[in-house]
Amino acid sequence: MTYDLIIIGSGPGGYVAAIRASQLGLRTALVERAELGGVCLNWGCIPTKALLKSAQVFEYLQHAADYGIVLEGRARPDLAAMVKRSRDVAAGMSKGVRYLMKKNGIDVIQGHATLRTGGRVDVRSAEGALDTLRSRHVIIAVGARPRELAALPRDGQRVIGCREAMSLTSQPASMVIVGAGAIGAEFASIYASLGTRVTLVETQARIVPLEEPEVSAQLQRAFARRGVEVLTGATVEQVDKRPDGCTVRVATPGGARELECDIVLSAAGVTANLERLGLEEVGIATAGGRITVDRWYQTSVPGYYAIGDCIPGAALAHVASAEGVICVERIAGLDAEPLDYLNIPSCTYTQPELASVGYTEQAARADGYEVKTGTFPFSASGKAQAAGHPEGFVKLVFEARHGLLLGAHMVGANVTELIAEAVMARKLESTADELMKAVHPHPTMSEALMEAAAAAMGEAIHL
Amino acid sequence: MTYDLIIIGSGPGGYVAAIRASQLGLRTALVERAELGGVCLNWGCIPTKALLKSAQVFEYLQHAADYGIVLEGRARPDLAAMVKRSRDVAAGMSKGVRYLMKKNGIDVIQGHATLRTGGRVDVRSAEGALDTLRSRHVIIAVGARPRELAALPRDGQRVIGCREAMSLTSQPASMVIVGAGAIGAEFASIYASLGTRVTLVETQARIVPLEEPEVSAQLQRAFARRGVEVLTGATVEQVDKRPDGCTVRVATPGGARELECDIVLSAAGVTANLERLGLEEVGIATAGGRITVDRWYQTSVPGYYAIGDCIPGAALAHVASAEGVICVERIAGLDAEPLDYLNIPSCTYTQPELASVGYTEQAARADGYEVKTGTFPFSASGKAQAAGHPEGFVKLVFEARHGLLLGAHMVGANVTELIAEAVMARKLESTADELMKAVHPHPTMSEALMEAAAAAMGEAIHL
Repeated sequence: MTYDLIIIGSGPGGYVAAIRASQLGLRTALVERAELGGVCLNWGCIPTKALLKSAQVFEYLQHAADYGIVLEGRARPDLAAMVKRSRDVAAGMSKGVRYLMKKNGIDVIQGHATLRTGGRVDVRSAEGALDTLRSRHVIIAVGARPRELAALPRDGQRVIGCREAMSLTSQPASMVIVGAGAIGAEFASIYASLGTRVTLVETQARIVPLEEPEVSAQLQRAFARRGVEVLTGATVEQVDKRPDGCTVRVATPGGARELECDIVLSAAGVTANLERLGLEEVGIATAGGRITVDRWYQTSVPGYYAIGDCIPGAALAHVASAEGVICVERIAGLDAEPLDYLNIPSCTYTQPELASVGYTEQAARADGYEVKTGTFPFSASGKAQAAGHPEGFVKLVFEARHGLLLGAHMVGANVTELIAEAVMARKLESTADELMKAVHPHPTMSEALMEAAAAAMGEAIHL
Repeated sequence: MTYDLIIIGSGPGGYVAAIRASQLGLRTALVERAELGGVCLNWGCIPTKALLKSAQVFEYLQHAADYGIVLEGRARPDLAAMVKRSRDVAAGMSKGVRYLMKKNGIDVIQGHATLRTGGRVDVRSAEGALDTLRSRHVIIAVGARPRELAALPRDGQRVIGCREAMSLTSQPASMVIVGAGAIGAEFASIYASLGTRVTLVETQARIVPLEEPEVSAQLQRAFARRGVEVLTGATVEQVDKRPDGCTVRVATPGGARELECDIVLSAAGVTANLERLGLEEVGIATAGGRITVDRWYQTSVPGYYAIGDCIPGAALAHVASAEGVICVERIAGLDAEPLDYLNIPSCTYTQPELASVGYTEQAARADGYEVKTGTFPFSASGKAQAAGHPEGFVKLVFEARHGLLLGAHMVGANVTELIAEAVMARKLESTADELMKAVHPHPTMSEALMEAAAAAMGEAIHL
C-alpha cells in the first residue's frame, strides 16, 4: 500500500499528527502495535486522572463533616471499582480515537512496525503476517516506557511499574514509591488518599525537582500532613522480596534505612522505545537513547521524522501533539512556526496540584535576566477559602525592566487549569501591568495571577 | 477630621479603592454602616461560594459509588452546619479586610454616611453620635441591595431574600425561586443539590438570559436532570401565605399555575442604595436609580465620585474593584487607563458553572462584525471524562477577517476558572491562531479553548 505519510505509534503525537495530515489532504496510515491512543490515553495521563479523581472524591468524603454533611456510616475505597472506572474512561477515550481515525479517513494498521529504507515500513501483525507499506514520509512516534532501575527489577507482583499501579485489584497496606517526579508524586497522592502508608524515595535533594523549590517544599508539607514519608537524596540499593512483602534497602543522607512494605512502585523516568525499529538499518542517528532531529523533526535521513517521547525533551503528551502538528504542516508545505520549548506547561495532578511554565526564578537569573517576582498565597483568596482549599500559591517571574512575564509556578487546588492563562500570557508577551489590569472574575482562584503580578509591581491589594 | 479621600462603603469597590489610595499616599477614611467587606464578602460572592462547595461535596457523596467508593450508610446535608461554615468563611474574610485596613493605615469609621457640600461627610454612629469628616475627594461606593418585587413583599419567613436564603437553619422541602439570573440560578443549584424541590420562575424567555442561548439551554437541561422545574416567560402575580407554606400564582405562556412551596425566594436584580445619602442636597445627578458618572467616575459635582453597584453597569465585585483602583489613580494624578467594559468576565457558580466574557455571537453580528465561531464540547475532553464532568462546552466568537477573539462562552465544571484565559487573550488582542498555537497542558479542560479556536479555523483535532 502506498501513502503520503506513514505514522508509527498512535499516542498523542501520532494520532494527532494523523488527523492534521488528513485535514491537509495527505493519504495517511497509522501503525499501532497495542491500544489506539498510546500510553497517554491507555496507561498514562487519562487513567491516572480518573484514579486521582476517585481519590479526591474519597478525600472529600473523609472531610464531609467540614462541609456540613452528616455521614451515617463509614466510607471506604473500593480500589477494584476505582480501577474499573479508570479503565472504562481509558477505553472510552481509545474508542474515541478509533472514531476520529475513521472519520478522518486514516488507515489504522495493527502490528509492529520496522523501518526500511526508501520510505518502506514493514508491519508484522500479532498473527505473524507481514505487510510492507510505502510512503514519501514516515513519522516515528513510538513513545517511551517506564525506565527499569538496576536495583529494582520489576516482577509485576511485589515490584511493579505504573501500569500495574493503575490496575491493582486490592489496595496495598503499604507502598514504597521510587522516584518523586510527576508520576511518582501522583501515585503517592492517590494511594495516600486511599489510606495506604506511602514512602516516597527520591535520589535528588527534593521531590518534583524540576519545579520551583518553594513548590517542592509546599507539596512535601502537604504529603507530610497526609502521612507520606519522604526520603530525599536517597538511593534504593536492594529489594528483598518475601511472599508477604518486601524490604527495601535505601541509602539516605542520614544513613541506611530498611523499609518494609507490601509493594514497591518503580517510577523513575522513561526510556524511548527504540528497539526492533530498524533505526540502524535505515541509518537514523540517535544520541543518548533518543532520536536526533532538527527543529522541524527531520531525522538524519530525509523523509524520516520523529516526534514525542522518542526525541530529546520533556516526555509530555501536549509536546508530542504540538510536534506532530508542526511536523505534518512542514511536510504538507505550510509555513509552520517552530515550537517554543520555553512556553510548555507542566502539570502534576497531586493534591494539591502543581503547574508551571517558562523560567524558574533561578533559571531566569542564570540566563542573565534581571528578575522581579510576585507571589500570592491562596490563603488570601476568598474563593480558595470558600472551597476549603487555602493551601498553595502562585509565583510569577518577570523580567525587571519591562515587566515581561518569564515564568509562572503554582501549587494548589485546580492550578493545572489556571496555568493555561500564563501560557497564553507568555505566548502574547504579556507584562505584569497587563496581567494586573486584566479584570479577573471574583471570586476565583485565577485572581491570584492578577495579584501575584500586582505584588511584583508593589501594588498587590490583598496582601 | 480632614482626609485626602473619604470612601463611603467598604465593599469590594470601597475597600480596594482605600488600599490603592493608601499605596499612593492618600490619607484615607473608609465609612461603613454594617460589616467590613460589604455584601460581596458578607452576604454575596463569598458565603454563596461556600454553600455551593458544600452542595458540590454533597453531590459527590451522592455519586460516591460512581467513583468507586463504598458508603456504608446514608449521607445527609446538615444545612445549619453548612450555613455555619459559610458564615465562618465570610467572617474570616471580613476580618481579613479589617487587617488590610489597619496594615494600610486606613481609618475605618463605623456609621451611616450623609454627603454634604464642600467635601464634608456626616457620619452618624449606631449610638447616634454625629461626626463630620472633611476631604478633598469623596468616593461613593454604597453598593446595592436585592430588588423588592411588588407582587412579592418579603417577610423574612415565607418570602425571603438572598440573605435569608444563605442563613436558613433548616432545609425547606420545597422552594420557589423568582428570578433566574446568576443569583437565582445559584440558589436553585444549591438547594436542588441538597434535595429541596425547586421551581425556578423567570420573566424572560430563558434562564440566565444574559448568557449565550446555548449556555442557557445547557443549564436548563442540567437543572431538569436534577429535578428543578423551570418556568420561563413567567410572572409571579400573587403569593398566598399560610402557616404551613405558600401558594404562588404564576402567569405562564401555558396559562396560570399555582405552585405550592415552603418558601419563596425573591432573587430579581438589585437596587442601588441611594436613600438617605444626601445626593440631592449636594446636587449629585442620578438617572434610572443610579449615580451618573463620567469614564473616570466623576459625578456631576466635582470632587465627588461614584463606583460599583450604585453606578450604571453590571453589578459585579470585580468591576467595582477595578473602578475603585482607576478612580483613585486618577485622583492621585496617575495616568490611568479607562476600564474596558467589553472585557469584563461574568461567572455563575451553578453546577455546571457558567462563564463568559465579551461579545455573544448575536451581539457581535449586531455590532457589524463578520463572525466565525468555534465550539468544543467537554464530552470530547479526556480530563472532563476522567473527572466525571463531561457536560458543557466552550464556544468562542471571532471576528472573521483577522480572527480576533471577540467573546468566550462556557458551561461546565470549573469554567469560572477557565474564563480568565479568555479575558487575558482579549486583553492582549489574541487571534484564533494564537490561541490554537499556545500549547495547553494535557489533560486539562483548558484544552477546550485551544480546540474551540481550532474549530473556528476548521482545524479542530478532537472533533
